Amino acid sequence: MSKPKLQIALDQTELASALDVAKNVAGYVDIIEVGTILAFGAGIIGVKTLRERHPEHILVCDLKTTDGGAILAKMAFSAGANWLTVSAAAHIATIEACKKVADEYHGEIQIELYGHWTLDDAKAWRKLGIKQAIYHRSRDAELAGIGWTQDDLVKMRQLSDLGLELSITGGIVPEDIHLFAGIKTKAFIAGRALAGEKGQKTAQELRAQIAKHW
Amino acid sequence: MSKPKLQIALDQTELASALDVAKNVAGYVDIIEVGTILAFGAGIIGVKTLRERHPEHILVCDLKTTDGGAILAKMAFSAGANWLTVSAAAHIATIEACKKVADEYHGEIQIELYGHWTLDDAKAWRKLGIKQAIYHRSRDAELAGIGWTQDDLVKMRQLSDLGLELSITGGIVPEDIHLFAGIKTKAFIAGRALAGEKGQKTAQELRAQIAKHW
Repeated sequence: MSKPKLQIALDQTELASALDVAKNVAGYVDIIEVGTILAFGAGIIGVKTLRERHPEHILVCDLKTTDGGAILAKMAFSAGANWLTVSAAAHIATIEACKKVADEYHGEIQIELYGHWTLDDAKAWRKLGIKQAIYHRSRDAELAGIGWTQDDLVKMRQLSDLGLELSITGGIVPEDIHLFAGIKTKAFIAGRALAGEKGQKTAQELRAQIAKHW
Repeated sequence: MSKPKLQIALDQTELASALDVAKNVAGYVDIIEVGTILAFGAGIIGVKTLRERHPEHILVCDLKTTDGGAILAKMAFSAGANWLTVSAAAHIATIEACKKVADEYHGEIQIELYGHWTLDDAKAWRKLGIKQAIYHRSRDAELAGIGWTQDDLVKMRQLSDLGLELSITGGIVPEDIHLFAGIKTKAFIAGRALAGEKGQKTAQELRAQIAKHW
């Protein structure tokens, strides 16, 4: 099983702040994500600018695309994104449209697991050739104090068994990493934990935990 | 039952084109929507600019918010939106966070009915005080030739009976309006049908059909 990558989610409302955060931790992360908040704050110029500043990183555009898939995917990939997030709640035709554009750009689709998705849905995504999904506590659920549960871990293993590589997110801190040992993990995604003065130190701690358990 | 309003969805990728379309039909519509495509294309400046140009219209920000609700809602409402769309797939804590911000700005939340939502979900939204939902064919489903079905109409009536006012969208054309007679309809939303040279004429035809059936 390959070692999980480390991803920073940029969820600043202003592009200038996001660029500062990215610059500070770029040397410690594999993947840079234009979070939904930044994508709406700055618009597509945010994706283009981060692509220019960080040409070697995998760049994720976190639109949680729910409709208008063909156009949104074209916008994101042509601006330089490598991966695009698509909501599990999107119609299968939307997901297929996104996958088609991703293929044209040699990019990938990541399904964001929100709402009442089922394992049958996951099988349908796999049938389209989709290889990645994102599993998380919602930011607001996290703020409401809802932690990682046994039910989360069971679902992660089921998805992993279907061949989906998972990126895991939702208030990820170094002390949580051990919980996910044994799961086919594409990346751990952290946002606020990697911002600010302690960003580099936290990134190093996350990397150490990943190295210990994979 | 009050007469449904007419809403234009601006789904241009560039703000300049969207402003042209809005200007052309502003006199014929009640509601202007910054569609997801425009919101990502232009960023939040798109919402601010449309608010400045059209101070008297109801302005909708169609983010299909799925997470990060408190921040995204604050961004949208402080930029001048009156209504914000939130995905049915969002965690109830996210929906509650959006509603709280909406209340501070005297705005409203519209639930976008994507994914496997249930009537129990709809009851939970009503319990939070949410009064609006958006019912549609997905853009991609529409492109795949999937039309309005009897099942759609049954679900619309169930939601309407729970007290949710519905906005209806997905390739709306004047000939479809009669299908929805009797449903508590807040607005009909059209995009491409209201863009371009025929935009004003189509808006008038939609208004005529609305007047005939409500």
